[in-house]
Amino acid sequence: MNFTVKLKNSISTSASVLCVGLDPVPDYIPKPMREIYRDDDKLILEFCRRIIEATKPYVCAYKPNTAFFEALGSRGWAVLESVTDMVPSDKILIMDAKRGDIGHTALQYRHAFFDQMRADAITLNPLMGMETIDPFLDDPEKCVFVLAMTSNRGAADLLQRRFEGRLSLGEYIAEELAKKRNNSSSHLGLVTGATQPDWIRPVLKAFPDAHLLIPGIGKQGGSVSELADVLKNHKGLPVINSSRSVIYAGGDSEDWMEKVAVKAAMVKESLSIITEKYV
Amino acid sequence: MNFTVKLKNSISTSASVLCVGLDPVPDYIPKPMREIYRDDDKLILEFCRRIIEATKPYVCAYKPNTAFFEALGSRGWAVLESVTDMVPSDKILIMDAKRGDIGHTALQYRHAFFDQMRADAITLNPLMGMETIDPFLDDPEKCVFVLAMTSNRGAADLLQRRFEGRLSLGEYIAEELAKKRNNSSSHLGLVTGATQPDWIRPVLKAFPDAHLLIPGIGKQGGSVSELADVLKNHKGLPVINSSRSVIYAGGDSEDWMEKVAVKAAMVKESLSIITEKYV
Repeated sequence: MNFTVKLKNSISTSASVLCVGLDPVPDYIPKPMREIYRDDDKLILEFCRRIIEATKPYVCAYKPNTAFFEALGSRGWAVLESVTDMVPSDKILIMDAKRGDIGHTALQYRHAFFDQMRADAITLNPLMGMETIDPFLDDPEKCVFVLAMTSNRGAADLLQRRFEGRLSLGEYIAEELAKKRNNSSSHLGLVTGATQPDWIRPVLKAFPDAHLLIPGIGKQGGSVSELADVLKNHKGLPVINSSRSVIYAGGDSEDWMEKVAVKAAMVKESLSIITEKYV
Repeated sequence: MNFTVKLKNSISTSASVLCVGLDPVPDYIPKPMREIYRDDDKLILEFCRRIIEATKPYVCAYKPNTAFFEALGSRGWAVLESVTDMVPSDKILIMDAKRGDIGHTALQYRHAFFDQMRADAITLNPLMGMETIDPFLDDPEKCVFVLAMTSNRGAADLLQRRFEGRLSLGEYIAEELAKKRNNSSSHLGLVTGATQPDWIRPVLKAFPDAHLLIPGIGKQGGSVSELADVLKNHKGLPVINSSRSVIYAGGDSEDWMEKVAVKAAMVKESLSIITEKYV
């Protein structure tokens, strides 16, 4: 199915723009799980299964971050493959890989994430140039989310500095990506952190019809009402990510899954002033 | 062992600054191998084993690029783990991962590549800010090679553009990395493409004692004599990478391993005007 249609459907059906980030760290997983699953790979697999089970009524997408699976080596990578199979087929699967390399190497990454794992979308890092994006652009069922303005303090080092007369390097990246609109079968998106409204505005102005992957709600502390205001003229679709504040909401309690579900429902609800614009 | 000592020893013992990049693509592997090993994962494993066997007298380092292993999923990742075990313990193992993410995620990558795979060094992408480097900086046995000026045409999009009054974004990255010298136990390096001498000069001036990982010799066409000139005032150590032009030098012939060995010896020899400065 066409990516934009699938994302639109997923947002409408769940009435949610919330994406849950799957960043499983064995030590943070609820104790009741740790007592059952002694092997880290089984533990993170079963944790992800339950997170998906608990949150699926409240989300439009899941975003596994590859780092947390690579940390367990090939066993972790096998878990990542299983997790991608667990994501319900009507939800968007975004692989948070932040890859970026020259053509023939990027093609391998494309193969890994689009062909093997059948992710709907991938996050990409454009530092080595816009050609690093091209191998991902030939499939209308897929979307790339290109890093433009992240929500960490380090964004101040490069992405928030003036570049080629623009207010920021992030704005320039958005402009360059927008130029690919006519030559891309895949759908185009940007990663724009929720904690940086003043920095996102010009980025979005440079490419208003980009889909947006927005991290930084939750633990990183972005404000929903500010974000809603930033998105007033946005013409793409947004996916708003929360990772740790949802998946670890249950602490070590026996009923941790319920608490995770309640937290996901709450975050979904808190985003409703944004969601209503898109459904 | 201290990373710089190990690299210095490895260059001296082999009398070579050549690094062989392991970018195994099943379709490009010599036919005699493809006829024996029908499974792609066994094929790339045995190919890498023979490449290491054929080239080890002529190189100081090996650089597997994670993309080519990820393309085979968890089986590929298992092969990557085996390949890292095959690299002789006196050679430098550089994991070409080009990762870059915020602190708690970067820590997972560090765990994957430094702790699990025991790589001596990793390539990193600093777009999200210099904080993304920090989790890799606490170990004197390790080195980070941060992307500063790559050898692809896309370098012109971002890395070669003016930034904060510097000639290039790459130069700025080098300056920012140099500031970490006093707070890093790990050793610091830059990725600087061989095909871009005029762009490398200012990068190197900003951080003359950085170790250098230099791709672009071979298929990408960098000139050795120009490079030697660029390195005149360099105070770190260089690792000069060649991937495809060495590992696929044997074509489909029965004696492909010999041809690969001859090619590696030739490239090593062609680099001797550079090597002699460092031994």
